[in-house]
Amino acid sequence: MLFPRQSVGLAQACFYFSSRFVRRGTPVLHPHACNGLNWARRMTSDGSQGPGKKQMGKPRWRLTAAGLLVGTGAVLAYGLAQEQSEHAASSPNDNSEVPLQDNSTTTATKVYPVYSREEVVKHRTLADRVWVTFKGEIFDITDFVGLHPGGNKIMLAAGGALEPFWALYAVHSQEHVLEILSQYKVGELSAEDQLEKSYSDDVSDPYARDPQRHPALVVNSLKPFNAEPPPEILTEDPITPNTFFFKRNHLPVPHVDPASYKLEISGTGLPDTLTLTLNDLKTKFTKHTVIATLQCAGNRRSEMNKVKTVKGLEWGRGAISTARWGGVRLRDVLLHAGYKPDSCSLVQHVQFEGLDKDVTGTSYGASIPLHKALSEDGDVLLAYEMNGEVLPLDHGFPLRVVVPGVVGARNVKWLGKIILSAEESQSHWQQNDYKGFSPSVDWDTVDFSSAPAIQELPIQSAITEPENGAILEKDSDMLTIKGYAWSGGGREVVRVDVSLDGGKTWCVAELRSAEGEEAPPLGKAWAWKLWQLSVPFPPDMNQLDIVCKAVDNSYNTQPDTVAPIWNLRGVLCNAWHRVRVTVTTH
Amino acid sequence: MLFPRQSVGLAQACFYFSSRFVRRGTPVLHPHACNGLNWARRMTSDGSQGPGKKQMGKPRWRLTAAGLLVGTGAVLAYGLAQEQSEHAASSPNDNSEVPLQDNSTTTATKVYPVYSREEVVKHRTLADRVWVTFKGEIFDITDFVGLHPGGNKIMLAAGGALEPFWALYAVHSQEHVLEILSQYKVGELSAEDQLEKSYSDDVSDPYARDPQRHPALVVNSLKPFNAEPPPEILTEDPITPNTFFFKRNHLPVPHVDPASYKLEISGTGLPDTLTLTLNDLKTKFTKHTVIATLQCAGNRRSEMNKVKTVKGLEWGRGAISTARWGGVRLRDVLLHAGYKPDSCSLVQHVQFEGLDKDVTGTSYGASIPLHKALSEDGDVLLAYEMNGEVLPLDHGFPLRVVVPGVVGARNVKWLGKIILSAEESQSHWQQNDYKGFSPSVDWDTVDFSSAPAIQELPIQSAITEPENGAILEKDSDMLTIKGYAWSGGGREVVRVDVSLDGGKTWCVAELRSAEGEEAPPLGKAWAWKLWQLSVPFPPDMNQLDIVCKAVDNSYNTQPDTVAPIWNLRGVLCNAWHRVRVTVTTH
Repeated sequence: MLFPRQSVGLAQACFYFSSRFVRRGTPVLHPHACNGLNWARRMTSDGSQGPGKKQMGKPRWRLTAAGLLVGTGAVLAYGLAQEQSEHAASSPNDNSEVPLQDNSTTTATKVYPVYSREEVVKHRTLADRVWVTFKGEIFDITDFVGLHPGGNKIMLAAGGALEPFWALYAVHSQEHVLEILSQYKVGELSAEDQLEKSYSDDVSDPYARDPQRHPALVVNSLKPFNAEPPPEILTEDPITPNTFFFKRNHLPVPHVDPASYKLEISGTGLPDTLTLTLNDLKTKFTKHTVIATLQCAGNRRSEMNKVKTVKGLEWGRGAISTARWGGVRLRDVLLHAGYKPDSCSLVQHVQFEGLDKDVTGTSYGASIPLHKALSEDGDVLLAYEMNGEVLPLDHGFPLRVVVPGVVGARNVKWLGKIILSAEESQSHWQQNDYKGFSPSVDWDTVDFSSAPAIQELPIQSAITEPENGAILEKDSDMLTIKGYAWSGGGREVVRVDVSLDGGKTWCVAELRSAEGEEAPPLGKAWAWKLWQLSVPFPPDMNQLDIVCKAVDNSYNTQPDTVAPIWNLRGVLCNAWHRVRVTVTTH
Repeated sequence: MLFPRQSVGLAQACFYFSSRFVRRGTPVLHPHACNGLNWARRMTSDGSQGPGKKQMGKPRWRLTAAGLLVGTGAVLAYGLAQEQSEHAASSPNDNSEVPLQDNSTTTATKVYPVYSREEVVKHRTLADRVWVTFKGEIFDITDFVGLHPGGNKIMLAAGGALEPFWALYAVHSQEHVLEILSQYKVGELSAEDQLEKSYSDDVSDPYARDPQRHPALVVNSLKPFNAEPPPEILTEDPITPNTFFFKRNHLPVPHVDPASYKLEISGTGLPDTLTLTLNDLKTKFTKHTVIATLQCAGNRRSEMNKVKTVKGLEWGRGAISTARWGGVRLRDVLLHAGYKPDSCSLVQHVQFEGLDKDVTGTSYGASIPLHKALSEDGDVLLAYEMNGEVLPLDHGFPLRVVVPGVVGARNVKWLGKIILSAEESQSHWQQNDYKGFSPSVDWDTVDFSSAPAIQELPIQSAITEPENGAILEKDSDMLTIKGYAWSGGGREVVRVDVSLDGGKTWCVAELRSAEGEEAPPLGKAWAWKLWQLSVPFPPDMNQLDIVCKAVDNSYNTQPDTVAPIWNLRGVLCNAWHRVRVTVTTH
């Protein structure tokens, strides 16, 4: 069961996954577009009706569509697209130099121009023509945008790679989709860019060797790189693809040779300094996986800036993401290093030092309480895997700390040292940053020592769809609102209330776990829940003030407004999230 | 240090303890009244200036007062009172039949009339004359009320015992105070009432044998007895005297013979049923003490009722109190009973059954998660002591559960049985009560199974002084606001913000711990913090909208308003607390 708290039928479930961009017809009969098919595939694997994956080959898909009653949905749309592209191929068009390809495997017969990733990124609008890449090939999909069954979402991929989107929208894993794509091929990526190792040789720029990132990310700062995914991407799946996982770097990305990498563990209560290679970590300890949400303390800072200017990156609501982390338990490593629990009351904190350094050679640093590090229930990992892949460069390759339930800032990336200590990390980020203050405190009066370093984060939720300022066409009876909700400290989100009238009346949203059917143990709900509300458009309301608020299992809830939690660093913005939309009728 | 987070001088500290009822002169020179002296005594024990207790005898106190510069404070006031009462004693008055007594030990020389507690309780107003009791004697203090250095607070004791107040206001522990009191003696309590065992013999009334309670308590329901202390009493000391600790009974108070009392421990994962006597508990296990705040889920329900009617007792903000509990660890008892941790994953909950029963013979029942019960950090006690006294009848004599950080309802009193189980308690109170719902849920639509039973409570704070609707005389430059703040789950309160303008601007209040200097370990802040703000009266404001909100160390904070957290049972009311006062100038 994907929805443990409520029983849903197929129609409801399909509707859950449908997108507002492609809403046509009635919700019951039309599990639309990508997501409708995606759901159909899931149901099949559960043994209920719907075509098996094997049936999805070209000759059979029309039959499949009929079987699903998806007359005007995704499959038909792809069919239409195929017909139109076939037609286009037989008549002159902007890509007339590109011959129609039956299958991508045959593209070797033609020589295409080679472009750099930099060139591809320039093609992000219909005016500039929309280019995308897939497995080293470049496609100009400008003429397909209007035909895309998933609607405007295709534009998120503009100028970048399709792979992370297709991983998210599984409907694309079909032969005929590749066939359609192949018809738009215009070039090939340079060999260097295919390896995704292209970076400038400008030695004067410490950020020159930073990795390539997907252009769909909304960049808040280039150097250091800080970017968040478009909100609607966040709530497509409870697990965020690595490509779209928000990036929060304080310094240039260090390049670490995994073969020579060494982790050093030292400090009070240890007999000696222990040094472990990556291979030691992978072979001497049991591997554990944990699904955990990370959130930057500055998530939603832009809302605080609207109250009064704060210092910090202008994050929207996307500085939060969820991954399945793989690695070893910090607890196991500390015990292996010789730490005897309860033997030394002097040790109160576990400090982490990153291999990322500023120009003075100072590393990024943070610490967590020993109790969290050592607790069997703490689930603190030294992670070398992220969603089944090798930890990406931007996320701390080759090793990072993952502290479930705790603010992102303590989840130190590119981990170099672990130090047991009586004291917290003395780093700037632990002592004089990431702390909360009263709205009355300003930069003239702030005393950083008077507030505790943020560890567990408070209850949070936000709306990812629709967007603030959106104009919604009332072309269906139903309005669908989506978002996420999470609480720190392993506290499980138990309810999300959504209001359409600014908080006067409320509906309860449907929740979707990252863990699937199995509820996480009490106090270990490390992952967010996605939520969705599908309700009839309220009659006679042309403007909706949509608001969400979440409740966790300690029954903490979000404050109503931002101003009373305003603080000079713009952290901990967890007031009700609000979007205002206009409703129009044809 | 009483104020670990802020350094305070003597003047400030004295001012902290001063009462708005007796404010005279400037704050620096006048540590007023009872509390000023109380503070002086504390400082003495720390080695700083101020008279030692030994010096407090009659001949020396005037000197003492001079040494403290307390020209117009408490001591002088008591001196004044003594002079006036001496004068009164030499002239005819309402108590003219009562001879002046030099010392209470000599009262045996006169025969006084004997009154029942019931008769004493009738004397609660100046019109009815104000009677109080002390060590079995009855005093008519009507003529002293106007002379009381602590101002109107003396009226809280009207009709009841002085002892709990004098325990709270330590200044009264002086010989001359007893001398003053003795002059007002008018009678003696009946022997039956002195034993505090008087109850009606009406066998048709299951509540007939309920214990006597202090008339200062604000009664919400007599049968079962539910009452809260006056708010200003709550924040006099971080430890609530047993007499004033809020009483929340679901059923008649059972009378248990401690000699024959047996606690039964049984259920899944145990080899056998274990039975322990009270003596077993006291002798076979290590005694532990824990300072913990208990709060009823319905605390502040009256504020929800103002939004829309809810079901439940009309609690003000006094359904919360703090005690130092003494007893044995539930963990130790479960291990002694043979439970092997991790041996039986079937056990998920620890159920408790009280010895209090309804007319059908059904016991009060509740459960907590096994993890909390068994955790070394959980600090769950089976308590037989409360603030160093034998557990009072109203609080579960001879044994109760104390579950720090968890809603009062799971802290089962008059404990009869402990049952390990795969399931939560199936009692009404666990399954169909004490749960939170969306404001949209009403009694027609509520599905109790859809919400988790309340365990940890959310962040809470309230203002205890001044009272809503109070008219404050601007006879000093300073306005003092007091209150409490607490969070469930062992999360420590790190800040309380107070606003005088309804939440537009904020000040940070001073905090005072129940634990004294020693900060509780991380995640084990079981006790509330009292807070106080002393600020100049804002100029040109005749009406103040005073608001408080607290922040805990997971940076959870309170919602702004009550309506969006309204729920049909009126539980979990933790919005900002607000009082509106009028300021007048002479």
